[in-house]
Amino acid sequence: MNNHLSICTSHALLIIMCFFMTGCNNSKSIKKEQNVTVFHGNVIYTSTPDTFQVLEHGYIVVDQDGIIQSVGTTLPEEYQSATVEELGDKLLIPAMNDLHVHAPQFRNQAIAMDKELLSWLEAFTFPEEKRFSDVRYAQQVYKHFIHTLWLNGTMRASTFATIHKESTLLLADMFDQSGMGAKIGLVAMNRNCPDFLQNTTEEYLSDFDELIRHTEKMSLVDPIVTPRFVPTCTPEMLSALGNLAVDNQLPVQSHLSENKGEIQWVKELDPSSSCYGDNYKKYKLFGQTPTLMAHCCYSEGVEEQMIADCGVMVVHCPTSNSNLSSGCAPIRRFLEKGIKVSLGTDISGGHQASIFHVMQHAIQISKLRYAQSNGKEPFLKLSEAFHMATKVGGSFFGKVGSFEPGYEFDALVIDDSSLNELSASANYIVSPYTLLQRLERLVYIGDDRQIERRFCKGKEIADPLLTLADSVK
Amino acid sequence: MNNHLSICTSHALLIIMCFFMTGCNNSKSIKKEQNVTVFHGNVIYTSTPDTFQVLEHGYIVVDQDGIIQSVGTTLPEEYQSATVEELGDKLLIPAMNDLHVHAPQFRNQAIAMDKELLSWLEAFTFPEEKRFSDVRYAQQVYKHFIHTLWLNGTMRASTFATIHKESTLLLADMFDQSGMGAKIGLVAMNRNCPDFLQNTTEEYLSDFDELIRHTEKMSLVDPIVTPRFVPTCTPEMLSALGNLAVDNQLPVQSHLSENKGEIQWVKELDPSSSCYGDNYKKYKLFGQTPTLMAHCCYSEGVEEQMIADCGVMVVHCPTSNSNLSSGCAPIRRFLEKGIKVSLGTDISGGHQASIFHVMQHAIQISKLRYAQSNGKEPFLKLSEAFHMATKVGGSFFGKVGSFEPGYEFDALVIDDSSLNELSASANYIVSPYTLLQRLERLVYIGDDRQIERRFCKGKEIADPLLTLADSVK
Repeated sequence: MNNHLSICTSHALLIIMCFFMTGCNNSKSIKKEQNVTVFHGNVIYTSTPDTFQVLEHGYIVVDQDGIIQSVGTTLPEEYQSATVEELGDKLLIPAMNDLHVHAPQFRNQAIAMDKELLSWLEAFTFPEEKRFSDVRYAQQVYKHFIHTLWLNGTMRASTFATIHKESTLLLADMFDQSGMGAKIGLVAMNRNCPDFLQNTTEEYLSDFDELIRHTEKMSLVDPIVTPRFVPTCTPEMLSALGNLAVDNQLPVQSHLSENKGEIQWVKELDPSSSCYGDNYKKYKLFGQTPTLMAHCCYSEGVEEQMIADCGVMVVHCPTSNSNLSSGCAPIRRFLEKGIKVSLGTDISGGHQASIFHVMQHAIQISKLRYAQSNGKEPFLKLSEAFHMATKVGGSFFGKVGSFEPGYEFDALVIDDSSLNELSASANYIVSPYTLLQRLERLVYIGDDRQIERRFCKGKEIADPLLTLADSVK
Repeated sequence: MNNHLSICTSHALLIIMCFFMTGCNNSKSIKKEQNVTVFHGNVIYTSTPDTFQVLEHGYIVVDQDGIIQSVGTTLPEEYQSATVEELGDKLLIPAMNDLHVHAPQFRNQAIAMDKELLSWLEAFTFPEEKRFSDVRYAQQVYKHFIHTLWLNGTMRASTFATIHKESTLLLADMFDQSGMGAKIGLVAMNRNCPDFLQNTTEEYLSDFDELIRHTEKMSLVDPIVTPRFVPTCTPEMLSALGNLAVDNQLPVQSHLSENKGEIQWVKELDPSSSCYGDNYKKYKLFGQTPTLMAHCCYSEGVEEQMIADCGVMVVHCPTSNSNLSSGCAPIRRFLEKGIKVSLGTDISGGHQASIFHVMQHAIQISKLRYAQSNGKEPFLKLSEAFHMATKVGGSFFGKVGSFEPGYEFDALVIDDSSLNELSASANYIVSPYTLLQRLERLVYIGDDRQIERRFCKGKEIADPLLTLADSVK
C-alpha cells in the first residue's frame, strides 16, 4: 500500500515537474519582464444578465497577481510588446462556480435516484457521511471530488463537508494544493439525525476555531459556517453559530424551503417564526454576513421579501430539485425582486457535477414554469443562466466570474472542434456556427472533452488527480 | 474536391478491411462451425417495466441470423463447446431505440434554444430543411447524423427526413450501409408552411412509391408514411396518405397535441373532429397500421381513450417538450391506461442525441408531475424508462429491445470503468457499485465514452463515419 502510494506520488511529482519545465502549455512563452499575460482568443462573458459580451479574437491582459488589467478587441499600446498566449479560434470564457455541493456525497453521485428524500438520506446519505470519520477514506473521495469539479470547469465551490474535523481540514488542504478556490463548510447538526452523525455546539465551535487557524494562510480557501438545516440544529446551536459568524465576519450557508414536508416540519419545530428563513434570521444567520441559501423552491411572501431585504444569495439547484421531486423554484420572480441567484450542483441530490448541465436544466425548468403560467413568467435566457453560473456565483468569492478589468482571471479555454465536426469536414456548403451558437452548443451538448485548459486567479490548474499528494498514509 | 473524397473513401475502405481481417475486435474468435456467438458478461435488461433482469456474468447465445437463442447464468449443454466472447466485468445491455427524430435538423442541434416554437420553425427549422433539396448537402449532414446515433448507442430510429425524394433515398441507403435499422419518413406537407417546403399529394405518392421500391431489398430499413402534422396537410393529403398506409400495410408517424396553441389551431382548421387525434383517425392514420404519435403532452379524455383503443404508440420526447416550453406529458396516466410509450430525442427540438439522457429527463419531469400532484401520480422508475427506451421502442421494429430468446440481438457493450475510478483506485475501503448502480450511473452521468461496442441484429456496427462512402460526388 505504502509502496503503491509512493510510486503514485513520484509519478505525480514527475508529471508536475515536466509540466512546469515545459511552461504549462505548448503556446509561446510569456515575456516575464512585462509581468502580464495576454490571452488572444474568442472571448465570451456576461457582465450583465441580459446579453453576452462577445469579442471575436479579443484580448485579455492578466497581471502577475491574476487580475485582469484590460479586455478588448485590440491590445492596448502598453502591452504591445508582451508575448501573447495565442488561442486561435478557441473560446475563452469565465470558469464555473458551484455554490452548493456536498463533497462527501460524491460517491453517491447518480445512484439511488428512485428513492425519496427521507429514505434516501437515511439509507444512503447519512451512512456515507459517517465514513468520513476515517480520514483515509476522506482522502480518496475528496481527491476524486476535486478532480471532478476541475474536469467540469468549476474553479470555485462552496462545499458542505461533514461533522468530522480531520477530514474537513484535509479537504481544505486539498483545495489549497489544487490551486482552486473553496469555502469549506464544517457541518453542524445536533438533533433529528443519527447519533453517529451529530456534534455538540461546543465541539463545533472548537473544531471551527481550528479550521479558521488552519486556513489562515491559504489564499483561496476559507471556512464557511454551515448549519446543516433548521431541523437538525437546536436553537442553541443556531444561536452559537450566528455569533460565530458575526464575531468573525464569516460567511454562512445552509438549506431553505426545499420541499413542502420540510417546511411543515420547521413550522412545527418553531411555530413562533414568521417563516422558515426567520429561523436563521433571528440567530444572525441570514445576511448579517454573506449568506447562501440553497433551493428556496417554496420561498414566497414574507420569506421572499426577507431574502431580498437581507441580501441573501439564493443557490438554485434545479437538477437536485427535479431528482428529489422538490419542485421548481420561482427564479424569475426572485430576479424581478432583485434577489441574487447563483447555481449549485447539489451533489448528490443533483447527479451532474457540471454547472453547464445545471444551467441547461435551469433553463428547461424555467420553460415549464413559463408554460404553466401561460407565458406570464418569462423563461431564463442562456445569458441569464450563464450570468448566474459565472458573475453572480463568483461574487461570493470576490471579484470573480467576469472578464471586466479588476476581476480575478478564472477562465476556461474551450476547444469545441469536436462539436463542429460537420462544419469542419464538409468543405462543401455547411457554414460554421457563430461564436454564440458555439457557446450554446457547449452548454447544451458539450462536456469535459471541450475544456482544454483551466485557470483560477490567473494560475493554470493541472489535474488534481496528478497534483494532489496523498498526505495521509 | 473529388481527390479529397477519393482519398477519404480509400482510407475508409482500408479501415474497413483491417477491421474485418482482425475479426472486428480483440476478443477470442468465434467458432464458426457452431454458428452461434456466446456473449459472457454482466447482462441487464427489462422484459417487463417494473424490474430489471440482472445476470451477473450471464450468457447470451446468438445465432447466425442475429437471433437470441438462450439467455441465462449458465451456458446450456449444447453450446458448451462454442467459443465465448468474453466481456469480463463489462455490462451488456440492449441498444437504444429513438422513435422520433428529425434527421435533417441535425445541424440545428443545441442552437437557438431561446427561441419559441413558431419563430424557431421559421427562422431555423424550415430554412435548414430547404437545404436538403441539395443531395450533396444531405450526404454530409446525414452521415454525421447517423454517426451521432451510433455514437450514443442508438441502433434503430424512426426518422423524419424532408419532402425531398433524392435526399430521402440517400438517407435510406446510408442507414442500410451502416447496418443500423431505420424507418425512413419522407415528409408530406402542402399547406401553412413556406412555398419552398411543400409537396403535392401526387408528388408524395409518386416519390413514396419509389422509396418503397428502393428499400425493398434492405433488411433493416423501411419506409414510414409521414404527414408532418395536421396543420401542414390538407384533408385530401391526409386521406391519400391513409390509403397509402392501409393499402401497403405501411406504418405511420406524426406529431400530436404538442402544445396548446397547436391544438387550438387544429380545432379551428377542422371543428368537426372530436379531438386532434381524430383528424388522423378519420383518414386511417391512427392505428389502422402501426402508428407513432410524438409528444401527446395534452392528450386527455376522448383523445387519450382513442390512443389506447387504436393501439397507437406515444413517443415521449421530454427534452424537446421542456426546450420548446410545450409542457409535461402525462406518461403515468398513459401507462395506467395500457398505452404503449416509447422515447424519442426529437432532434432538434430536443438537444440530446442520447436516449440515456432522454430517459433521465423523462424521470425528472415525471418527478415534477409527482410533486405537483402532491404524490398522487407516481414518478417513473429507472426500469420503466429503460423499458420504454428498449423493449417498447424496439417493438416497433420487430422483436427488438430485449434479451429474451427469439429477440434480435441489438446490444451495447459498456465499459464503465471510467465512471468507477474511485472504487478502482482506492484499494482501501471504497466498495464497488452494484451492477444496477453501475447501470444507473451510466444512464445519469455516462456518455458515449462508456459504449465500447454496438450490435444491431447480431452484427457489430462500426463507426458510420468510417464505413459510409460518399456516393454523391
